[in-house]
Amino acid sequence: METTSCEMPASAVAGEPGSRVMRFRDHRWQGVPVEEYKAPADHWCGISRQVLVGNQGERTSYHLRYFEIAPDGFSSRESHAHEHAVVVLRGRGEVLLGDAVHELAYGDTVYVAPNEVHQFRNRAREPFGFLCIVDARRDTPMTPAK
Amino acid sequence: METTSCEMPASAVAGEPGSRVMRFRDHRWQGVPVEEYKAPADHWCGISRQVLVGNQGERTSYHLRYFEIAPDGFSSRESHAHEHAVVVLRGRGEVLLGDAVHELAYGDTVYVAPNEVHQFRNRAREPFGFLCIVDARRDTPMTPAK
Repeated sequence: METTSCEMPASAVAGEPGSRVMRFRDHRWQGVPVEEYKAPADHWCGISRQVLVGNQGERTSYHLRYFEIAPDGFSSRESHAHEHAVVVLRGRGEVLLGDAVHELAYGDTVYVAPNEVHQFRNRAREPFGFLCIVDARRDTPMTPAK
Repeated sequence: METTSCEMPASAVAGEPGSRVMRFRDHRWQGVPVEEYKAPADHWCGISRQVLVGNQGERTSYHLRYFEIAPDGFSSRESHAHEHAVVVLRGRGEVLLGDAVHELAYGDTVYVAPNEVHQFRNRAREPFGFLCIVDARRDTPMTPAK
């Protein structure tokens, strides 16, 4: 049986992305750019993003991203009609869901319902990283009044 | 700040599932049933499934599942128009993509393109577990002739 390291088989349809393996190392995926998340603002802080599936011409109805929040960092406190599915891969953190705060550790998985006000926060000393899956077609987040 | 363990905030829309946290322990998520994957057959072997998001009335355009393949187990060798996104969480395994075999370890992420023949296999001594995300609306897998 032939074993290859990371080659991309030809796509079944010309012009569309072929299958691929993205190697994981030190909480980064090789070949996937690490982006700053949004422009800096006072309502979020210290977040990087890697888009694993969804921005290379795939036809998936979802996007798979990895976010990492630095110590003392936090995401926007926001709500939107689209839902989140989140799986923790690194460190510890917490999520605000409505009025409740839940502590999160490795593997814990969060479903954020439509229009639920939510925020992810890192109060620990190491980065807090998680996969986040969203619909490819989704509405723009809103910032709640309070 | 109030900290709760695992309560479900009320959903914004009656009758729809509210946000929830699914606790991870020993490669299982509490409150999520472990299902046998498909009926036993000679073209797959030793697979369990947990559906984390998608079968409780969520409106996501995707389903988030966790599959675990026992030692010497394997998934169906199949193809379909819908794509897979896979993230390895446990053990080691391999994936067939077209004619190439790629070894997989923790964190490695696989995009399976439309109509790519693929199969996941576990030749190691411990379970091989991975998240698998698919479109909620998807076509039926086909078994290639050879």
